Amino acid sequence: MNTTSSLWARFQKYFLHYEDLGFSIDISRIDFPEDFFTGMAIPADSACRAMAQLENGAIANPDENRMVGHYWLRNPGLAPTEAIRDEINATRDAIVAFAKEVHGGTILATTGRTFSDLLVIGIGGSALGPQLVADALWSQADALRVHFFDNTDPDGMDKVLAQIGSNLGQTLVVVISKSGGTKESRNGMLVAQAAFTREGLAFAPNFVAVTGKDSDLDKVATAEVWLRRFPMFDWIGGRTSIMSAVGLLPMALQGLDVSSFLAGAAAMDEKTRTDDIRLNAAMLLALMWWYAGQGRGAKDMVVLPYKDRLLLFSRYLQQLVMESLGKEFDLDGKTVNQGIAVYGNKGSTDQHAYVQQLRDGVNNFFATFIEVRKSSPSPQLEVEAGVYPGDYLQGFLRGTRTALHEKGRESITISIPEFNAFQLGALIALYERAVGFYGSLANINAYHQPGVEAGKKAATAILTLQGHVLLHMHATTSPQTSEEIALAINADPEEVFHVARHLAANNPKIHHVSGRSPSLDTFTFSHS
Amino acid sequence: MNTTSSLWARFQKYFLHYEDLGFSIDISRIDFPEDFFTGMAIPADSACRAMAQLENGAIANPDENRMVGHYWLRNPGLAPTEAIRDEINATRDAIVAFAKEVHGGTILATTGRTFSDLLVIGIGGSALGPQLVADALWSQADALRVHFFDNTDPDGMDKVLAQIGSNLGQTLVVVISKSGGTKESRNGMLVAQAAFTREGLAFAPNFVAVTGKDSDLDKVATAEVWLRRFPMFDWIGGRTSIMSAVGLLPMALQGLDVSSFLAGAAAMDEKTRTDDIRLNAAMLLALMWWYAGQGRGAKDMVVLPYKDRLLLFSRYLQQLVMESLGKEFDLDGKTVNQGIAVYGNKGSTDQHAYVQQLRDGVNNFFATFIEVRKSSPSPQLEVEAGVYPGDYLQGFLRGTRTALHEKGRESITISIPEFNAFQLGALIALYERAVGFYGSLANINAYHQPGVEAGKKAATAILTLQGHVLLHMHATTSPQTSEEIALAINADPEEVFHVARHLAANNPKIHHVSGRSPSLDTFTFSHS
Repeated sequence: MNTTSSLWARFQKYFLHYEDLGFSIDISRIDFPEDFFTGMAIPADSACRAMAQLENGAIANPDENRMVGHYWLRNPGLAPTEAIRDEINATRDAIVAFAKEVHGGTILATTGRTFSDLLVIGIGGSALGPQLVADALWSQADALRVHFFDNTDPDGMDKVLAQIGSNLGQTLVVVISKSGGTKESRNGMLVAQAAFTREGLAFAPNFVAVTGKDSDLDKVATAEVWLRRFPMFDWIGGRTSIMSAVGLLPMALQGLDVSSFLAGAAAMDEKTRTDDIRLNAAMLLALMWWYAGQGRGAKDMVVLPYKDRLLLFSRYLQQLVMESLGKEFDLDGKTVNQGIAVYGNKGSTDQHAYVQQLRDGVNNFFATFIEVRKSSPSPQLEVEAGVYPGDYLQGFLRGTRTALHEKGRESITISIPEFNAFQLGALIALYERAVGFYGSLANINAYHQPGVEAGKKAATAILTLQGHVLLHMHATTSPQTSEEIALAINADPEEVFHVARHLAANNPKIHHVSGRSPSLDTFTFSHS
Repeated sequence: MNTTSSLWARFQKYFLHYEDLGFSIDISRIDFPEDFFTGMAIPADSACRAMAQLENGAIANPDENRMVGHYWLRNPGLAPTEAIRDEINATRDAIVAFAKEVHGGTILATTGRTFSDLLVIGIGGSALGPQLVADALWSQADALRVHFFDNTDPDGMDKVLAQIGSNLGQTLVVVISKSGGTKESRNGMLVAQAAFTREGLAFAPNFVAVTGKDSDLDKVATAEVWLRRFPMFDWIGGRTSIMSAVGLLPMALQGLDVSSFLAGAAAMDEKTRTDDIRLNAAMLLALMWWYAGQGRGAKDMVVLPYKDRLLLFSRYLQQLVMESLGKEFDLDGKTVNQGIAVYGNKGSTDQHAYVQQLRDGVNNFFATFIEVRKSSPSPQLEVEAGVYPGDYLQGFLRGTRTALHEKGRESITISIPEFNAFQLGALIALYERAVGFYGSLANINAYHQPGVEAGKKAATAILTLQGHVLLHMHATTSPQTSEEIALAINADPEEVFHVARHLAANNPKIHHVSGRSPSLDTFTFSHS
């Protein structure tokens, strides 16, 4: 043994643990130099102050002129006004009471029976959080079986409806959309309603909305007299909405422990409110991302939880990190093209997939191992004398960390004592705060998403174009090339080509004949 | 309209479509210069010749002295010997016949009832393919409900067993391990067997092995008289085993169309056997990866299928691409650290997650859009006049492609006519061949995985260490620090610290007290 080994010394020097949470973070395998923290002291201090201002109700999202209030959700006492505090508490109480009524049969489904299933309709921030929670905390004791519509794929929605099967009438449908204008969710809502109607069932008694006050969805839900409406607050962004009604309502309906989840987040918030960098796990995380990626996302973040229940955590973090940090301009308007790419699934599964590249291939990443010390809440099978499946899980994590380190690949290791709603809440809070800090270090607005609009606008333009192409085809009888159609309706021939191909694939009245080149493909509308 | 627009011209110039497959690939939004193909003609030609040799039975995996035969699986006529041809055909026939017997009730479960569920136990190449197929081709008409153990997480396995619930006795269990020595799968097998035993059920009548001849698993299955054994061939690697018994057996048991799946792959193989670069979709793909990443993986591959059923495709490609291409040395022994990082989920869902970063943030990727022209096999709901959910899906794809292009982000678009087993087979073949070509361009062995061993060895060392730590603790009564234990058993104190923490979290006889620093933490074995 060598107790003077530089790694053991380095490990101890930077090891941070929160005794009461059973949490620890090990940054010793990121190769920052000894003076790194000194050099980062001033920006880190600014980041702490920005976070404090945000928590106090500052307009932390200047482009949208909004407060950023997700930390208040788990500690309403922090909210800057009594009105906000009251609406957080009232919403949470209403959710818990509603779930109790659903579970107890005080509220019955449109069929007059108790609810058996839950269909959540949302996308992005209105789906990823509920999906993570539903999968991570699933148990046999769940009150409802949970399903999702998280896209506008008609085949995908049919698949989910087939899985719900004859339980449709006993399915509570929660439609989530902050603006109420998200087309994927609107389409999902219509498809779900049509499914009820096809079965001869009134849908309104099974439908619940989670949306901003007076949004289009709010109006529809009111007009159609849906079972219930829950508010989304203006000061909550989609990717940090998991502790608002967006996350809590599905969670409570599934029968999960909402209070522990919030308590875990509140506890991590509290720990990471310190401006002593070395005691602040979220700041350490942000600083390690900064160091590893040279402050410009030069390395991808590979997230490797050794825990099946955390399979969706990397997908959740993809949104939280990439949508928050992937920005063109900084707060001074300078072009910065910031961001950190995030991917991963779970260990040790991924060791049999891409860990080959992590160890031997292009060194363009840092790994984050997430370790759960207690392998299982239930007794384990002894697979060899004195050895249990969870020992292998731990062995593979440590072994892979070592194998990467040997090859100069950097990693962070986060350890939690066990897995439950409290610890999941704490992990989410840790990353929310790390993202906030990193946003400050990079001097960007981590709370808007201006780039998302462009894709939506371009998509709307395609749908408009589709209408024009269809009208033009309908008005002509001879085969038309995409160039001819484009000329007639003043559009781009390439876009016309794809729209026409799409129409021909889905509309039996439109006939497509391939040519040697796309400009020679023809399309004909059959009036017969 | 501007028909002379450079984009329409460029699109047409490089657009490749396979009329009979309804397949096309659009590489016009990768910004390679006009002379790129000329410059790559010689290496591309070499890659075509290497592929032809591989298909003819060359030792294409020199480190392991193995042939690489996955292309023979869908076209046994290609196999280099009659013996290989015969074992491919015999295995396939045996799988189809076995599935028929299971579905028809000729073979009954240990309970004497027909089988209702399927539990596949495997990891990496023995899980990702079956998981992709099971999810992508699921329908209400499936013969069996499919579940997976794909890790050694005891809690994760308990969760799956809880989902199987009272169907356990009617669950066919397929254990897949080529070497038969993969610990995760061995543990999964033992956990599943113990579950049967707990219910008072004989497990052997429900257990099937897919493994190499005379492997440890083969011996166990023989000794325990399992229901059936199917072979894994020496000349098939895990990440290309989806068309061997590994993929076909679960697929056939689920009731899916094995023949179409193989036919789709065979058709794509055939098309991409041409050495005319511009007509070879797999070569175009490899060349675009090469161009975008400057031949050294400088850009990540973001895979965005606009199709819910292809959600797992990016995870499948993560293994196929990263384990094949992520290599330290080239074939001449030169250090190259090759590879391409792969991530993605599905559109338009991901537009509400990380597409913000793709458009505005760090430009370290190229996107691959996968478009399915026919939105659904079933009639769609009209959500607006003349507009269907699939029109939105198509609109979002085209819109996002445009939004990325506007900002100088490169993309490839692959279009398939509809989604089914045939097209899934074709897509997989396309990527298998692109990976093979890229391996040749990079002059690496794309068919071994030397880096995986290191993590396994390090993990084994941790388990051995755990035994030593436990023995030492057991032999002492006073609290011990990890340094003291490490000194006594001649081990690294940091590893001892983590092993001891893990043991304390899982073994109620081991008591842990935290100190100010890890070196002051103590561990005590309680003999009471």
